[in-house]
Amino acid sequence: MPKVFAQMAVTLDGFIAGPDDGPEHPIGRQGHKVFAWQFATRWWKSMYGDGDAEPTVDDPVLDEIFARSGATVIGRRMFDNGEGPWGDDPPYHQPAFIVTHSPRPTLPKLGGTTYHFVTEGIERALELAREAAGDKDVEIAGGADLVQQYMVAGLLDELELHVVPAYLGGGVRMFDRPELAAVPLTPNRVIASPAVTHIRYDVG
Amino acid sequence: MPKVFAQMAVTLDGFIAGPDDGPEHPIGRQGHKVFAWQFATRWWKSMYGDGDAEPTVDDPVLDEIFARSGATVIGRRMFDNGEGPWGDDPPYHQPAFIVTHSPRPTLPKLGGTTYHFVTEGIERALELAREAAGDKDVEIAGGADLVQQYMVAGLLDELELHVVPAYLGGGVRMFDRPELAAVPLTPNRVIASPAVTHIRYDVG
Repeated sequence: MPKVFAQMAVTLDGFIAGPDDGPEHPIGRQGHKVFAWQFATRWWKSMYGDGDAEPTVDDPVLDEIFARSGATVIGRRMFDNGEGPWGDDPPYHQPAFIVTHSPRPTLPKLGGTTYHFVTEGIERALELAREAAGDKDVEIAGGADLVQQYMVAGLLDELELHVVPAYLGGGVRMFDRPELAAVPLTPNRVIASPAVTHIRYDVG
Repeated sequence: MPKVFAQMAVTLDGFIAGPDDGPEHPIGRQGHKVFAWQFATRWWKSMYGDGDAEPTVDDPVLDEIFARSGATVIGRRMFDNGEGPWGDDPPYHQPAFIVTHSPRPTLPKLGGTTYHFVTEGIERALELAREAAGDKDVEIAGGADLVQQYMVAGLLDELELHVVPAYLGGGVRMFDRPELAAVPLTPNRVIASPAVTHIRYDVG
């Protein structure tokens, strides 16, 4: 059966984005520290025109993530921050379901991404994403609040943390819901690189 | 040349001990979540009378730590919390230098541990520990504040984090000093187990 998974880059002090995130600073101030390893990958560089970039040790991890995912669920805050920077050819290349309170018409973009706006909550968004993904997995893209909502609801099967050797001291926390105390994580795979440590957990 | 290292267990939300740590709760409330993997090791069980316990995947990591260390530096808060529980035969089995503002006479214990109280600051404590360790490494045992002081002072060579798949939501933070932004960490070895992920970093 296809899985529901999330993958988040997180600093050693537990942040996924810097302070003051918003449309002007989509990943917060100093948020580049969270994603420096990703900006160095061939996956990232090829999206921005450098198709001949050398792959890093982290490229296969990203390749696997994008190969397994058939549809994506995105939280409202992450979408509001990302819609501008992602532009006309967003990095999803698959149906994306935005969990929001504000209805909007379905919005097709280039490269296979279509934004669907879901106002009936996280369970309905996941249901629609599962249908769209078919035999493939569904990725909960973020942000941290949406990922935690799915964890607490018992709907997330797998969480991969890209543990970044950096500190932020403030910003958006990956984990801040007390209900998570009842959601066990068990490491099932670790991939190490000089830039980041990818730890994948079974959830629940 | 011998190295100066630290090794700390840390939750996914960045805590090394639970809330309200003190002599009554040496590792804070819920602090057992941080050390559950350690309590399962043969190393731990053999100290408490179960010498026939099976080793876990984590035992070689601890064995290596205790083999390389010839002397230990301990912060005042950690010592105040630990002196009682560690008892007459503390788990150090080597000279231990306590960084404190309160002078006390040197205190020999059973099993090779001797507590030396150093009131001249962290550099002097390290100097004494290096002398005592000879060809072996010096461990900065903690707590987090002392480890961060050595990191910021450029005196720590290596930091191993035992990344525990648990959350605490509050307690003693591993990293909370803004000056750490200038102290890079680079992963140099990762050992995975079903209970915890050991990531060792070069510091600076």
